[in-house]
Amino acid sequence: PEIKKIAVIAGDGIGPEVVAEAVKVLKRTEELFGYQFELEHGLFGGIAIDERGTPLPQDTLEMCRNADAVLLGAVGGPKWDNNSKELRPETGLLGIRKALGLFSNIRPAVVFDCLKDASTLKPEVLEGTDLIVVRELTGGIYFGEKFRREGAQGEEAVDTCVYNVTEIERIVRQAFEVAQKRSKRLASVDKANVLETSRLWRETVNRIAPEYADVEVEHVLVDNCAMQLLRRPSSFDVIVTENMFGDILSDEAAMLTGSIGMLSSASLGEGSFGLYEPVHGSAPDIAGQGISNPIATILSVALMFRLTFGYEEAATLIETAVKNVLDAGHRTGDIAVDKSKAIGTTAMGDLIIAAM
Amino acid sequence: PEIKKIAVIAGDGIGPEVVAEAVKVLKRTEELFGYQFELEHGLFGGIAIDERGTPLPQDTLEMCRNADAVLLGAVGGPKWDNNSKELRPETGLLGIRKALGLFSNIRPAVVFDCLKDASTLKPEVLEGTDLIVVRELTGGIYFGEKFRREGAQGEEAVDTCVYNVTEIERIVRQAFEVAQKRSKRLASVDKANVLETSRLWRETVNRIAPEYADVEVEHVLVDNCAMQLLRRPSSFDVIVTENMFGDILSDEAAMLTGSIGMLSSASLGEGSFGLYEPVHGSAPDIAGQGISNPIATILSVALMFRLTFGYEEAATLIETAVKNVLDAGHRTGDIAVDKSKAIGTTAMGDLIIAAM
Ligand SMILES: CC(C)[C@H](C(=O)O)[C@@H](O)C(=O)O
Ligand SMILES: CC(C)[C@H](C(=O)O)[C@@H](O)C(=O)O
Repeated sequence: PEIKKIAVIAGDGIGPEVVAEAVKVLKRTEELFGYQFELEHGLFGGIAIDERGTPLPQDTLEMCRNADAVLLGAVGGPKWDNNSKELRPETGLLGIRKALGLFSNIRPAVVFDCLKDASTLKPEVLEGTDLIVVRELTGGIYFGEKFRREGAQGEEAVDTCVYNVTEIERIVRQAFEVAQKRSKRLASVDKANVLETSRLWRETVNRIAPEYADVEVEHVLVDNCAMQLLRRPSSFDVIVTENMFGDILSDEAAMLTGSIGMLSSASLGEGSFGLYEPVHGSAPDIAGQGISNPIATILSVALMFRLTFGYEEAATLIETAVKNVLDAGHRTGDIAVDKSKAIGTTAMGDLIIAAM
Repeated sequence: PEIKKIAVIAGDGIGPEVVAEAVKVLKRTEELFGYQFELEHGLFGGIAIDERGTPLPQDTLEMCRNADAVLLGAVGGPKWDNNSKELRPETGLLGIRKALGLFSNIRPAVVFDCLKDASTLKPEVLEGTDLIVVRELTGGIYFGEKFRREGAQGEEAVDTCVYNVTEIERIVRQAFEVAQKRSKRLASVDKANVLETSRLWRETVNRIAPEYADVEVEHVLVDNCAMQLLRRPSSFDVIVTENMFGDILSDEAAMLTGSIGMLSSASLGEGSFGLYEPVHGSAPDIAGQGISNPIATILSVALMFRLTFGYEEAATLIETAVKNVLDAGHRTGDIAVDKSKAIGTTAMGDLIIAAM
């Protein structure tokens, strides 16, 4: 098959450790399936601030633009938390999403068998929970005009939330398509009883829904959704929502599965290009100790294979290998019941490769 | 004692039924403590739309303005859901908050002993959960400019989120004061890594924190807070946040206690005036059947006594009476394990009055 270019961005904290294992998995699939990957490495986030004075250096962005897909570890850490806006890792994250046109964030929230008891929810409530949050990623209050001004009541801050029909339509269509491949139920989340952007959102969903007549649509207000995720998580299939609500709800959904250390995510644009990353953060507290869990990042490779390259067989092989290693009882510290038996990052990566 | 004027707004759905029981409790305290209440009744919400063509008639607003406190049942229902904005119950709710200057919404989330098992969270996680969300109620994206316009990409909708230092300072000070009377821990929730309003919020919290040196302050990002509420609910004491985040997080917090049918809330402004209402909605599906649970509304009276009138003794008497009735095993349908033994709205009200 043709050579695929993958931009690899290790980032901060445990990012480099977990990405190293995912790269080993990539290489193993080259051997097994004859794939050819050209990996390029770039600086991004806190480390880029330290070494280049900007969280998103131009050459890293160019590297991503020239790639077929991006594999990202994690960015951020307390070291940069008090920096000014331009010198913060998050600014790089927002910048890369916008620059690469990654308007859709796909966040599966599933319960891993071996982590059934890790959730704070009762097992009978969690039973069967398997949902995907489709979050709009390049619009809304994240990217609207922001400023300070003097008002009659002292200093004032302003954020602007803007959505146009084109932006809404493309993300909603994508969510409908995701739903069509699953249980065909779509929950569109908004605050249409208060926000004008939500009213346009809801009108747009209703306008295009007839084109996806096999999908059952439910409108859920965001406050109610925060409650229903707790009360009946397994009743959701695909949830589609705008940027800010998606940020909150996708984290709530991930946490209630108890499996947050194992979840991968994809950020997609038009076409097949995508950026893949684990849902967990840079975990600066355990960075550099070789004890972090590489599974979410390895599963991000599987997601990349499925969604960007169409390498379905290899995606399934990776997922099965992960499952087999877990079934055999191997655990990193974060998911081990008996911490004294926990294995390290590299050992976990090696076991998964061996199981492939 | 002097005569206290209470504006009573029954509203829609089960509102009139539950308010009727709360009024019986008010009258009982007149007998027991010699209080004098002057009750005035007003139309509001859906019923006001039907009878007056507006969700918030001017005379209802005047009645509230002349009162010492407002007791509200619930508003809304599917009947009015597709109305235009001016003819929706929610518009009345936002209008009354703004007109009465109710900038602070106090939402306790506690676990009732008799409902320990009603939560979807594991009992050991829930153990000791007793928190209050202090939500800013008259600012932010709820009240900023909203409009549609034609853009290069088609129709566009805009919502504006505005906060000035004065608005932030008054709600944050109130939260600090609430925390001082409790466990002295305050979590301020924002999205300071993205929003300008959040950065002004955080600066303001940090600026005034030294004046409340006995309170320990933690800044939590809203997405992280949605997770931490699930992971460690009992570690929170007071949470203070802006309007939209507060809407989402207070509902999440209420739901995780499993006690949502029992929770009361207060909306406060400057001075002692307040609007008190149950957290649950108008429950149109069971309205008119006499089976709804009046306890949250009765506990709203206790909250009114404590926060607006300073009738601490009577507040405690009401709360104790509720506890005793529940301890004796009496349940309305929503909280009954054995539904066949459930009692009705009036019977529950009568038992609580008898227990006083
Ligand atoms: C770091 C932050 C800007 C970012 C966001 O809010 O989008 C993060 O929370 C995420 O969800 O990827
Ligand atoms: C009905 C709606 C406008 C309202 C709000 O969002 O404030 C409600 O959800 C609430 O929390 O009281």
